[in-house]
Amino acid sequence: MVSESLQVKHLGEQGLLRRIQTFCPAGMVGDDAALLTVSPGRSLVVTEDLLVDGVHFSVGLASPGVITTSPADAGWRAVAANLSDLAAMGAAPLGITVGLGLPGDLPVDWIEQLYQGMTDCLSQFNTPIVGGDLCRSPVFTVAIAAFGEVDPGHVLRRATARPGDVIWVTGPHGASRAGLELLIHPEQGEGLTEGDRAALIRAHQRPLPRLDVMPLLRACGAAGEGETDGKGRFNPPTAPLTAMDSSDGLADAVLQICRASGVGAVLHRRQIPLPVGLVDWVGEPQAIAWALYGGEDFELVMCLPGAIAQALQAQLPGSAIVGDIVAGHDVILRDETGETPDESLRLDQGFQHFGD
Amino acid sequence: MVSESLQVKHLGEQGLLRRIQTFCPAGMVGDDAALLTVSPGRSLVVTEDLLVDGVHFSVGLASPGVITTSPADAGWRAVAANLSDLAAMGAAPLGITVGLGLPGDLPVDWIEQLYQGMTDCLSQFNTPIVGGDLCRSPVFTVAIAAFGEVDPGHVLRRATARPGDVIWVTGPHGASRAGLELLIHPEQGEGLTEGDRAALIRAHQRPLPRLDVMPLLRACGAAGEGETDGKGRFNPPTAPLTAMDSSDGLADAVLQICRASGVGAVLHRRQIPLPVGLVDWVGEPQAIAWALYGGEDFELVMCLPGAIAQALQAQLPGSAIVGDIVAGHDVILRDETGETPDESLRLDQGFQHFGD
Repeated sequence: MVSESLQVKHLGEQGLLRRIQTFCPAGMVGDDAALLTVSPGRSLVVTEDLLVDGVHFSVGLASPGVITTSPADAGWRAVAANLSDLAAMGAAPLGITVGLGLPGDLPVDWIEQLYQGMTDCLSQFNTPIVGGDLCRSPVFTVAIAAFGEVDPGHVLRRATARPGDVIWVTGPHGASRAGLELLIHPEQGEGLTEGDRAALIRAHQRPLPRLDVMPLLRACGAAGEGETDGKGRFNPPTAPLTAMDSSDGLADAVLQICRASGVGAVLHRRQIPLPVGLVDWVGEPQAIAWALYGGEDFELVMCLPGAIAQALQAQLPGSAIVGDIVAGHDVILRDETGETPDESLRLDQGFQHFGD
Repeated sequence: MVSESLQVKHLGEQGLLRRIQTFCPAGMVGDDAALLTVSPGRSLVVTEDLLVDGVHFSVGLASPGVITTSPADAGWRAVAANLSDLAAMGAAPLGITVGLGLPGDLPVDWIEQLYQGMTDCLSQFNTPIVGGDLCRSPVFTVAIAAFGEVDPGHVLRRATARPGDVIWVTGPHGASRAGLELLIHPEQGEGLTEGDRAALIRAHQRPLPRLDVMPLLRACGAAGEGETDGKGRFNPPTAPLTAMDSSDGLADAVLQICRASGVGAVLHRRQIPLPVGLVDWVGEPQAIAWALYGGEDFELVMCLPGAIAQALQAQLPGSAIVGDIVAGHDVILRDETGETPDESLRLDQGFQHFGD
């Protein structure tokens, strides 16, 4: 096939644009900027992510060797990360823009697969690509900005956790990190069933942002409506809900919420939901480490009253109440069985470093 | 000073975030995404730009040697480019998000100067930085998404030029390219006055997006209000206005508008407004080439009825009617004096190539 050898530098910006526009709704792309409608009374939510080859994914150009991420999967994951940020604000997606920094020798076929992966993920949520930018870059870079809308009274914040809240997570943690391990070392995980193995790999390659949680919150009466008072001022509901996504790991999410809210937390080690088969494969300490620090699970971590969390847990299989918000500033990982001593969690363990 | 030697890798993400947040409004940054309000009845406009060191600017890391762009100027220009895209849609800015891809050895001082330049430009238009992303990258990269709002009846489009329209530009072209030349070769332009030299360099380092044009269009009655009919349907004004910014050069703007609108154009060579002193310095052919293909002047190129253009020209010093939209597909540069033969303009002359 000719397209297998076609590279970015052979097409130029206009030729490339024409191919990319086939992935966008007709009429949406081609002006200086894109036009979107925010529903009356709703607020706009915007988020931006920058992903760099060799840092956030590996397409084999920056670091030839093991390729763990196909172009389509890289596209899916880039979109999922941004939609997950919208989900963590309680917002419904309106559209995304995509900026690409492209080395001249990048295969065009590769870019089309990237867009296919992005649109595959977006189509799950009826969300279009509305615009973007193309430019030359020595390292392949993807910049995604995502736009959503939210009722001002339903915004999920990070700084509103209060002592007495419980910590509820929407699903298992550590699956993405485990899937990555299986891709790098396919000989590992001998004891896993084929289904469990495939599920872990899928969690890494095709994570789903939890845009399903906000409707569930409303259905459970957890997302209050707020009200406008006699003077036309909008009063948010009395109990704002706290949420963050676990893109940088469960520990990071809890630590960020606690720091923003000025509270502490106790995480119950034995209650953290882990993927099926993981403990048998790597042992409990490694499984917990991946759950806490692996990242990219894109679940939501919420702090809310226990009664609401229990109602939500009953509605959402796989979710779990994993801890309590307490006074103070310490975030403690506690093994209620006493088998493992208390651990104090710190931000820098799950953190991106800028060194080389 | 300690900060002179402080590098990104010494601070880590959290330390860097704390320094950057001093450039953002309190409470705006720190959640998963940013929250903005679009005024009732107005549409959202979004645009995204990716800028890469060594391609769009040179900070001296990618290509040690001549440094033509200070960190503060790079920040100003990156913001100006995005606000210019909003201006070209007829929109007023609401905010921007900034994604940074950072090499570990980038000086922190440099990043603070970048943000200072961005906020210096933004403050001219009361526009905040509302969020962003930081990540590691082997090459310094800036991704900016800008958000604006526009009345649906006042959107400036690219595909609406019609034969009979004139082409009106909001200011001189070629100044940014000339300023770059003076920065690279300070020994040039001996005959320029100090004021003219400073103006050319400033045009390159601190371009101003033409967000002042939309209010002028309204004041001149050019931007129709549109109306809602008896059935609640919104009817845009009968004569939509066409606009694009000249970030990629005047030729590119006219060619893009013509291609999108299915029309041709005649540009009158002697009517293209050039910066003071440029022809005397480099000669007319070079001055015209820089005006057509230099780019980064961030003026608006509009197509509209001649009577409106004349009213606008009278209101906006430096602006000029430079040509006519005609039937067909050719874009011709014509010298009415007959001194220079007609030239046919083509897209690829002003175009970014992806080769190395």
